[in-house]
Amino acid sequence: MKGDGSDAEKKRAAESAATAVEDGMTVGLGTGSTTAHAIRLLGDRVEQGLDIRGIPTSFQARELAVEVGIPLTSLAESTLDVAIDGADQVAGSVLLKGGGAAHTREKIVDTAADRLLIVVDSSKVSERLDKTVPIEVLPAARTTVATRIEDIDGDPTLRAATRKDGPVVTDNGNFVLDCAFGTIDDPQNLSTVLSTVPGIVEHGLFVDCADELHIGEATGVRVEQF
Amino acid sequence: MKGDGSDAEKKRAAESAATAVEDGMTVGLGTGSTTAHAIRLLGDRVEQGLDIRGIPTSFQARELAVEVGIPLTSLAESTLDVAIDGADQVAGSVLLKGGGAAHTREKIVDTAADRLLIVVDSSKVSERLDKTVPIEVLPAARTTVATRIEDIDGDPTLRAATRKDGPVVTDNGNFVLDCAFGTIDDPQNLSTVLSTVPGIVEHGLFVDCADELHIGEATGVRVEQF
Repeated sequence: MKGDGSDAEKKRAAESAATAVEDGMTVGLGTGSTTAHAIRLLGDRVEQGLDIRGIPTSFQARELAVEVGIPLTSLAESTLDVAIDGADQVAGSVLLKGGGAAHTREKIVDTAADRLLIVVDSSKVSERLDKTVPIEVLPAARTTVATRIEDIDGDPTLRAATRKDGPVVTDNGNFVLDCAFGTIDDPQNLSTVLSTVPGIVEHGLFVDCADELHIGEATGVRVEQF
Repeated sequence: MKGDGSDAEKKRAAESAATAVEDGMTVGLGTGSTTAHAIRLLGDRVEQGLDIRGIPTSFQARELAVEVGIPLTSLAESTLDVAIDGADQVAGSVLLKGGGAAHTREKIVDTAADRLLIVVDSSKVSERLDKTVPIEVLPAARTTVATRIEDIDGDPTLRAATRKDGPVVTDNGNFVLDCAFGTIDDPQNLSTVLSTVPGIVEHGLFVDCADELHIGEATGVRVEQF
């Protein structure tokens, strides 16, 4: 199952998902290196006459969409036919996202789409989720949320910035706690528990969101539908 | 049960709860007209030598605490022994809050306290909750959240500001959707459903939070414990 996670695999996944986009659609544009390939491919097709509108999930996605010429719209103006987004780890239909701290807006856009297509290279696929769960928190709540995470046997770490002093600040002006839970046996339950903690804006577990998984492998693409 | 909701009732409730605060405690300071009485009473006691620290739930609470001389601390520095806060409607131990759009920070502080004392006048007490539920949403998600609210038979209204054009912006930089659900028969279920909607920062239903209810009545105070 595990591949090399190469850029070639990412491209194959992105190509596979991008072909699902048709004339007249409004498309959610995810964040990250694999989705960036899909945005570039859509830009090429727009140049060739494809008539779509994009709704970006982040500053980064917006900048890239503008660069490659995809006309933009917003959730206030349009409904979404499809969204294409990446993931940091995938187990079945459950996703772990938020390595780029964009998971809140991604979840808003991804869950608003009629269909969510996830694009990943094969190194992201796992039997069970065991990476840290990125949790966006209101700055005032970082200590109370950290205490709650410890109460449910998690190990929270405030994500430090590297090009500024202090913590990473998200596009929404919040902080990120990266929370280790070991292997996550019941992501649905953990997702609900985290959602109800005061001060958590959004967490990186995406349960029952993905409709299709496009996995770039060494020699092709594997598509799973849910 | 219904009283006149007078200022005298609010003061009686506030006096009752304020007596629970003892030397050495860290106290969560809620927002609103009834809690303001409690903050003023605590200020009087501090002037007489009471040694406490306050953690405000809003800009308004902070300003008032400073005015009356309560030394402040923060959630990052201290744990909370007790919090005193108001409510817009109360049914049993379930609270509806957020009329002042401060419910997100209130929920963070209130749930971090060992004991939460709720102070209300008798007009706030009801058999069942039927007021609108204030929901703080990320600005980018206001339309997607509104659609979800309608999906669960709610009627959302973006709260308009009156001293600025456009919507109310919360102390956290977000918007408020006031959502009518008619009579709320199952607040626990509604609370969980709302918590899992992407883009909702926090909603005004407080289930399993209150430890004591101090109800100011025409001739005295009724205290309920949970």
